[in-house]
Amino acid sequence: MTAYEALAAHIAEYNDLLNILNTLKWDMRTQMPAGGAATRGAQLATLTKLAKDIFVSDKTARLLDAAEAELTGADADAYATRALRQTRDAYELQKRIPAELVGRLAALGPESEAAWAAAKDADDYSAFQPYLQRMLAINIELAEAIGYADHPFDALIQQFEPGMTAARLKVIFGELKGGLLPLLGKIVANDAPLPVDLWAADYDLAGQKALCYELAELIGFDFSRGRLDIAPHPFEISFTRDDVRITTRYDANYLPMSIFAALHEAGHGLYEQNIAPELSRSALTTDFIGQYAVGGASYGAHEFSSRMWENQIGRSREFWQLHFHRLQSRFPEQLAKADAELFYRAVNRVQPSLIRVEADEVTYNLHIMLRTEIEMALLEGAVTVAELPQVWSAKMREYLGLTPPDDRRGALQDVHWSAGTFANFPCYTIGNIMSAQVLAAARRHLPDLAGNLARGDYTSLLAWLTDSIYQHGRAYSTEELLRRISGEGLSVAPLLDYLERKYSDLYQLN
Amino acid sequence: MTAYEALAAHIAEYNDLLNILNTLKWDMRTQMPAGGAATRGAQLATLTKLAKDIFVSDKTARLLDAAEAELTGADADAYATRALRQTRDAYELQKRIPAELVGRLAALGPESEAAWAAAKDADDYSAFQPYLQRMLAINIELAEAIGYADHPFDALIQQFEPGMTAARLKVIFGELKGGLLPLLGKIVANDAPLPVDLWAADYDLAGQKALCYELAELIGFDFSRGRLDIAPHPFEISFTRDDVRITTRYDANYLPMSIFAALHEAGHGLYEQNIAPELSRSALTTDFIGQYAVGGASYGAHEFSSRMWENQIGRSREFWQLHFHRLQSRFPEQLAKADAELFYRAVNRVQPSLIRVEADEVTYNLHIMLRTEIEMALLEGAVTVAELPQVWSAKMREYLGLTPPDDRRGALQDVHWSAGTFANFPCYTIGNIMSAQVLAAARRHLPDLAGNLARGDYTSLLAWLTDSIYQHGRAYSTEELLRRISGEGLSVAPLLDYLERKYSDLYQLN
Repeated sequence: MTAYEALAAHIAEYNDLLNILNTLKWDMRTQMPAGGAATRGAQLATLTKLAKDIFVSDKTARLLDAAEAELTGADADAYATRALRQTRDAYELQKRIPAELVGRLAALGPESEAAWAAAKDADDYSAFQPYLQRMLAINIELAEAIGYADHPFDALIQQFEPGMTAARLKVIFGELKGGLLPLLGKIVANDAPLPVDLWAADYDLAGQKALCYELAELIGFDFSRGRLDIAPHPFEISFTRDDVRITTRYDANYLPMSIFAALHEAGHGLYEQNIAPELSRSALTTDFIGQYAVGGASYGAHEFSSRMWENQIGRSREFWQLHFHRLQSRFPEQLAKADAELFYRAVNRVQPSLIRVEADEVTYNLHIMLRTEIEMALLEGAVTVAELPQVWSAKMREYLGLTPPDDRRGALQDVHWSAGTFANFPCYTIGNIMSAQVLAAARRHLPDLAGNLARGDYTSLLAWLTDSIYQHGRAYSTEELLRRISGEGLSVAPLLDYLERKYSDLYQLN
Repeated sequence: MTAYEALAAHIAEYNDLLNILNTLKWDMRTQMPAGGAATRGAQLATLTKLAKDIFVSDKTARLLDAAEAELTGADADAYATRALRQTRDAYELQKRIPAELVGRLAALGPESEAAWAAAKDADDYSAFQPYLQRMLAINIELAEAIGYADHPFDALIQQFEPGMTAARLKVIFGELKGGLLPLLGKIVANDAPLPVDLWAADYDLAGQKALCYELAELIGFDFSRGRLDIAPHPFEISFTRDDVRITTRYDANYLPMSIFAALHEAGHGLYEQNIAPELSRSALTTDFIGQYAVGGASYGAHEFSSRMWENQIGRSREFWQLHFHRLQSRFPEQLAKADAELFYRAVNRVQPSLIRVEADEVTYNLHIMLRTEIEMALLEGAVTVAELPQVWSAKMREYLGLTPPDDRRGALQDVHWSAGTFANFPCYTIGNIMSAQVLAAARRHLPDLAGNLARGDYTSLLAWLTDSIYQHGRAYSTEELLRRISGEGLSVAPLLDYLERKYSDLYQLN
């Protein structure tokens, strides 16, 4: 066994433990009886600590040293070299984060989340304020431990989107806002209610489930290596490429909820299922920082895949021209007054709203920018935790023209901060930007793509995505992936172009 | 923290890992897509090895020494003392079993099981013979490593039924056969077909599922701390008392399959759900030898609970007099020609058969004795692997009056030996014997029990079982539990008495 193989065997076991943690989390969210929560918590804590101990052990250091000595001068672009470099970087970073700090963050999490849930229910921001204050302080400590040159945000975002910085995000956001706000203004001026309320009917769950399976399979999700279950907050999670689990949720009076959540999570699932088999159990399917077994390049890159399949494919006119009959044959009475075009319009209506998770493609990124700008200001000390609701309201008025009537529909709406997660929100927008760039590149590389999509053939797109992006797992960063396929890094022009075209047509803006 | 508390905290983490292994196994058998098998195997192997390393570590030895010094002279009967003694015994035993031997057994398992499955399909014993030869040899090595005074079987059965010996089993089996064979002869002479074939109808799965939930809940299974799922080979598994998962299987043309499997597994589940909460994550819910998180005293003791609820309660006339209407209201057409008495007779018909898992209460133990006697003879060298099919046939004729027409329905029918498991079969019979003893003791201790059961009130029985047996987890052995409630150890008289009464009535033998 070479020194590199010895390191790889050690990392494979670490990756196994992270995949086991994923299994426990999936079970907890989809299967576990309520009574199991406390002992499951103990089991998760034990295995999380054990996995971390194994990764930051002297054994890892020894194996890393030996593998580096062995691979000196090897091809810098080879998977092995990249895996080794990422493992070394993660090891050094993990060593800089004190176990005591991680323990404090983990211990505060459940209490803080419970306080947030209660505060949200009671619409009492002041009850959550002290927890947010503590979570912010711990995240500032964490940023100092990780280290940064310019902005504490730069340290924290390395956990989710390696290489991204606050300065870069500010430029990107500026460009994006510059395009989105005028577009939104024109849309709002032209908006009118649809002639039929499609959701004033009952859509039985069995029919919805069958549809979700059908649509996920249609775009290429492989059920011999995956499952679709129910979860109140839909998610995708994998235990290697060979066992990828997606979830959705069902509302009897709102069919799009289940369908688009299923397409979104299937989009995440397609990424995981199409990673090269040789990357299973390797550093290149291991998020060493988040202690998570995951194959996508980053949070943003993962979101590119889910958003692309959900929105650019799943909310396209071509998609429903082809597949609306599937809905109608499951729900003939409920959809008797509808056709593909009406359905397409109904699931693409743009309406500024207070709630991020309900936002359409045009307004969604404004919700993300608002949160990211607030996160940066909190970390800088430019905004205090006490001032947060006011800042939130002011930005909501500026970006969306709305004033939250309460904090439940304002600063208290998302779980992230209560769970101690800062600098994660921008990944959603990075994903949206990347999805437009990738699909634009795919159209350039595949002259037949438009025709294929119009015929319902998704295999050429999936094959190209696998070849260009999916197969590489975490070997390349978001920026590297984009440069390889489009010659440039993250760029907002394709997203703005896509939104301009789609919504100019839908709202007859020209 | 006392030295004992330090040991307990260490064991709690080991117990967490075993509960996690249980979760992975449950998922594998009930949820996992087929494609996930290979990587799940790697994950199980990694965690199994890690758990074993943690248990046989120097840390365990150090903590054990300190705790023993601290508890010298403590009450020998207290949970802590018992937990400490069991941990020490298991540690010494595990140290005696070479890791290399365990690895060899584990590595041969899948290959041997596959060879067995193929040999069974092809009815070709000779194709399985070399694997059985190797499994027997490894088990003889294992017996030598564990150590024994009289018989290698004595060593192997310690894994499943601590304290039991081959000599003791021979005596027990002799008594049991002495009662069963004459009873069976009389029954067979009096047997006649039932007037109606109740299973010549379709019983839809949704109705069967609802019934299984209803019956499990009726006898006390707590669904806030448990689930019921589908598995091709039904089983019960727990991840502490607060998360107990049972399974059953459904046959549209044979309603009893799902119902009695559900009652059987719910019987196992009741044991786990009623262990004292303070034993969660302790040595007294840890099978250190099998590396399994389980709360029952032994395999035999666990089988007492499942067999008692399935057979002594679930196949009693009183049970169906009360609950047959539940079946009939779910399946009015299918059961139109039936009544409680006919159903009772149908699910208690005694018929010598070739297949153990389909055997009735009277013949079941004869199947077990046949296997156990063969296991002992193989370990002694009195029978060779080549002779096994002939010995099997001869014993089948002697005990059940049947000659297997092929090895598929003979020596190849069970998976156990191919998986490398020897000396586990007698636990089924120990469970049957114990179930009759326990229920007889319960009747003596609870004068109202017959009336309660006739009214469908199972709570007094469950409370008494919890108090006498379930709550103690693994603190007492099967023998100790029986002595505490009945004043004597394992004794076949109550089982023979129960069978004599029940079947003399059913077959009008007197």
